[in-house]
Amino acid sequence: MEIFLDCLPCMMRQALEAAKMATDDEVLQSEIMERTLAILSKFKRFDTAPEISGVIQESIRELTGVQDPYAAVKARDIEEALRLEPLIRTYAQETGDSLPRALKTAATGNVMDAALYSGYDLENRLMQELKRPFEITDQELFAGNLKQAKKILVIADNAGEVVFDRILTEYLSKTHQVIYAVRGRPILNDATLVDALRAGMGPGVELISTGVATPGAVMALASEEFQALFRSADLVISKGQGNYEALSSPERDVYFLLKAKCQRIATALGVGLGAYVFKKVEGSRRE
Amino acid sequence: MEIFLDCLPCMMRQALEAAKMATDDEVLQSEIMERTLAILSKFKRFDTAPEISGVIQESIRELTGVQDPYAAVKARDIEEALRLEPLIRTYAQETGDSLPRALKTAATGNVMDAALYSGYDLENRLMQELKRPFEITDQELFAGNLKQAKKILVIADNAGEVVFDRILTEYLSKTHQVIYAVRGRPILNDATLVDALRAGMGPGVELISTGVATPGAVMALASEEFQALFRSADLVISKGQGNYEALSSPERDVYFLLKAKCQRIATALGVGLGAYVFKKVEGSRRE
Repeated sequence: MEIFLDCLPCMMRQALEAAKMATDDEVLQSEIMERTLAILSKFKRFDTAPEISGVIQESIRELTGVQDPYAAVKARDIEEALRLEPLIRTYAQETGDSLPRALKTAATGNVMDAALYSGYDLENRLMQELKRPFEITDQELFAGNLKQAKKILVIADNAGEVVFDRILTEYLSKTHQVIYAVRGRPILNDATLVDALRAGMGPGVELISTGVATPGAVMALASEEFQALFRSADLVISKGQGNYEALSSPERDVYFLLKAKCQRIATALGVGLGAYVFKKVEGSRRE
Repeated sequence: MEIFLDCLPCMMRQALEAAKMATDDEVLQSEIMERTLAILSKFKRFDTAPEISGVIQESIRELTGVQDPYAAVKARDIEEALRLEPLIRTYAQETGDSLPRALKTAATGNVMDAALYSGYDLENRLMQELKRPFEITDQELFAGNLKQAKKILVIADNAGEVVFDRILTEYLSKTHQVIYAVRGRPILNDATLVDALRAGMGPGVELISTGVATPGAVMALASEEFQALFRSADLVISKGQGNYEALSSPERDVYFLLKAKCQRIATALGVGLGAYVFKKVEGSRRE
């Protein structure tokens, strides 16, 4: 996906957020912003926003020595999601153990980031999000594909979201081999192996790393193991906006499962801001 | 006022907004963002955010040839404010022709920018804003100063706001000489001479230009005429955040009249986000 000009102020805001999490030293924060501006000024040389974010976050690690600035935030998100798990399970199983509910629950996990904490009454807001239907859903197409499939790859997004994803991976792993791929290194509030384990992912699900430290699975940066798996899996579910940005013109068919949190992504998908989407995008290399 | 790191993403967002208003050509918009990033990367060399904004907006004028990208926005804001004038006057005169109401009305004009249009039901929202009391008000101090004063300088902010300011300038001009100072050239949605005339400013009020084309009256950039007036006026009222940023450590006493629209300004003033403030700041050169 191309880099929209609207992404530039947003990436700068994100850099400042990470800088403040990594250090209280205002001189260092100021230096981080200078470096961020230098990186952003070369935005035309990059293909996707997650790639730029990756470089910015790497420079923050270098300047501060802090390897995981979002560690505390991720721990809080996971803890909060685990606290909400009974509520999530009640919703997921209300209509029996169904695919549509499992998909919608996993999609809703996409709100388990800072945005959700800006207000009070988390339970009510979460229930509203869970009940909000998909604006686009290719779930019948997916259900059809599922019959022929054996191996399913799910590409994870943020840390707190893993608790919601477990509803989907538990459902799928009853009948299929499920592989859950997380980031190769800490990047923003995205899930790493440690985060996924903390959120209770597995047993019955294979956990692997993409090898990528960008907030989106940029294939050119991924490990050979992940690239091979991406090609060989029968079905791929990609979660969240970052992975959508990185994979929106995929070589193979991908099902994107996300909430459109920013106007640009919503416009690209042809949905309203805040809409839930489960959309199949056909790969450029047809088999 | 120092440049906060939080201002950087905000100035970038503002640059993109202006770029889109000035041109539909995406290549040109992209070039504007590259130039903006180059300007912002030197942020440490500037003293205040309005100075940086001034340079960015000048580069947009250069690249696009559009001298007043916000012309249509300002015309709309003024038209809308004039349409609301009966409502504004009813509020201002509800308790008789009083100074507190005149001050609060002028302060409320500070919301007459794009923010107000993001929702519907403008009248109700405006009434809520008008009724919201000052969180800080030095109006008794001001009323005391007024008794000894002859010449009052009011430094304008955005274009639509001028209609609200007329309530205050009409009140003050009954007993005092009032001079209303606008920007020297178009800059964002700030009021210029043409805008002020369109919004009905005058008669009985002298209109002058600061000579400045930054969104805040940066004294070092102001005309000699304005600098002399700034020194010689008995009272100075500075409107809005931009002027506060430019003048927050003034040589002479200044009354700041504004709504704290961003968290950084709110923190600097020790008030909540969105608070109304009428605050006297003492000058560094005591007479």
